[in-house]
Amino acid sequence: MSISFHGLSAFPITPMQQDKPDEARFAALITRLVEAKVDSIGALGSTGSYAFLTHTEREKLTRLAVSHAGSIPVLVSIGAIHLRDTLLLAEDAQKAGAKALLLPPMSYFPLRDEEVFTLYETVNRHVSVPLIVYDTPGTTQFHFSDALMQHICELSHVRSIKLPSGSPTAEEAAARMARLLPTLPESITPGISGDPTAAQALIHGARIWYSEWGGLFPRLARHLTDAALAKNEAEITRIEAIFAPFWAMSARYNGSLRVIASAAEIMNLAGPGALPRPLQGISQDDYGQLAALIHTHQPA
Amino acid sequence: MSISFHGLSAFPITPMQQDKPDEARFAALITRLVEAKVDSIGALGSTGSYAFLTHTEREKLTRLAVSHAGSIPVLVSIGAIHLRDTLLLAEDAQKAGAKALLLPPMSYFPLRDEEVFTLYETVNRHVSVPLIVYDTPGTTQFHFSDALMQHICELSHVRSIKLPSGSPTAEEAAARMARLLPTLPESITPGISGDPTAAQALIHGARIWYSEWGGLFPRLARHLTDAALAKNEAEITRIEAIFAPFWAMSARYNGSLRVIASAAEIMNLAGPGALPRPLQGISQDDYGQLAALIHTHQPA
Repeated sequence: MSISFHGLSAFPITPMQQDKPDEARFAALITRLVEAKVDSIGALGSTGSYAFLTHTEREKLTRLAVSHAGSIPVLVSIGAIHLRDTLLLAEDAQKAGAKALLLPPMSYFPLRDEEVFTLYETVNRHVSVPLIVYDTPGTTQFHFSDALMQHICELSHVRSIKLPSGSPTAEEAAARMARLLPTLPESITPGISGDPTAAQALIHGARIWYSEWGGLFPRLARHLTDAALAKNEAEITRIEAIFAPFWAMSARYNGSLRVIASAAEIMNLAGPGALPRPLQGISQDDYGQLAALIHTHQPA
Repeated sequence: MSISFHGLSAFPITPMQQDKPDEARFAALITRLVEAKVDSIGALGSTGSYAFLTHTEREKLTRLAVSHAGSIPVLVSIGAIHLRDTLLLAEDAQKAGAKALLLPPMSYFPLRDEEVFTLYETVNRHVSVPLIVYDTPGTTQFHFSDALMQHICELSHVRSIKLPSGSPTAEEAAARMARLLPTLPESITPGISGDPTAAQALIHGARIWYSEWGGLFPRLARHLTDAALAKNEAEITRIEAIFAPFWAMSARYNGSLRVIASAAEIMNLAGPGALPRPLQGISQDDYGQLAALIHTHQPA
């Protein structure tokens, strides 16, 4: 278990082109993350559209990410509706060189606690690399109780948790993080997603930021991570002010992916039709506003 | 467009066996529906675990259902997270003999109105058989506005809507049905799911009952449908009293599939492990209670 979880884990999108992954642009996004010196790469997370792709595509993209990531560890999601698929995806991902596996309780029917525990317990028995518990109620409709999270964190390969920072509200999410952290085994690295509250979470005990916008603006996210780990409030305030309008637009679209894909297109890092259908990009008005923001701040 | 939508559409489970569809038992369930003279068969609905199965499995099961259904029309769901998959599934299903296609706005990220409209509009352009709009907020997290539903119902192949009868409450769902029906084109057959309120919905304007428990107890559901269409309140009350404890247990499990799969096992219509993992059957206590209910009422 060579990976150490810390700092900035950047989650790139998987640009699509005519309903297929655009491998060249995906590889270029990985290279950009390497150049920005992120600590790890979360390929094929929610932001990377894992849920839309076939096993074959996911394996191929994992190999591509690993081959472009150099010494930076690559994590991938092995989420699937059917547990038999999750087990196959776990095997594929490990063979393709993934250093850790992100496991959400993805479902069609919202799952029950005992089903979620058995899901993690089963996968735990089948893998040899670390597992990250991916708590993402906005996509899975599943809400982990503290007791269930603690129970899962005792499984031998579980090494990190990725908590949402705005669910149901930022305040309640922060209170949950504060409540949960002291009860978890030492071996668990607490991680935060939800970019707008990540810096404060890092100050208050989270040790890794699983970042969506960090997949597109890795240098800016690198600076914010470093400022947060150094508890440099002035620098945090300065960088968050640059991120703020991007985060605000993401919130209006109920999630970042649609806005990030449009930003990637504006920055010539994705072609048109980069989102997997039926997802659509942002409105023309917002696209204009986003282009102006990118022109002004030149985030990278 | 030969299918006429009316009466009882029964949705069988797809029993699994060691992570694969149990084709023999699936075919036997179809034959049972034929013998009970249901009006149509909804193979591979939510209850039929469509969301857990591969394209190949879904095509094979559709062929199997069609070949055992005789002259009874078979509907199948073509739901998928990625629209490219929905289009492929629509083609497969039509080639396999499905007479109508059930389309839910299935998603990983909850969809936006314009995305859902484009989804239906795109599929509408690609199919030659009728489409049924499948409104299932419990699994898709998507809530159709009246305006969006009306807009979709104007598409050329859309012929029916399958509305949930308990979302967010039975009263609000009934009010919505009453409000929506007069605004829809004549060509649209209003349909209801949610077994406990189906009879009243049929009395008040719905013309087809898309039934989950009807996939396991087709004779009982046939009687309830006929009583409702004849507005025979005494008979409705009598039959609903038999269904009531099964529906009550379904409600406790947040949906019928887990309970129906256990009932099918008790009736020797499915083997153990009939649910796709990570779904699990009901508790031992409930299993005992369910076995006693089936022993007492001998529902069929």
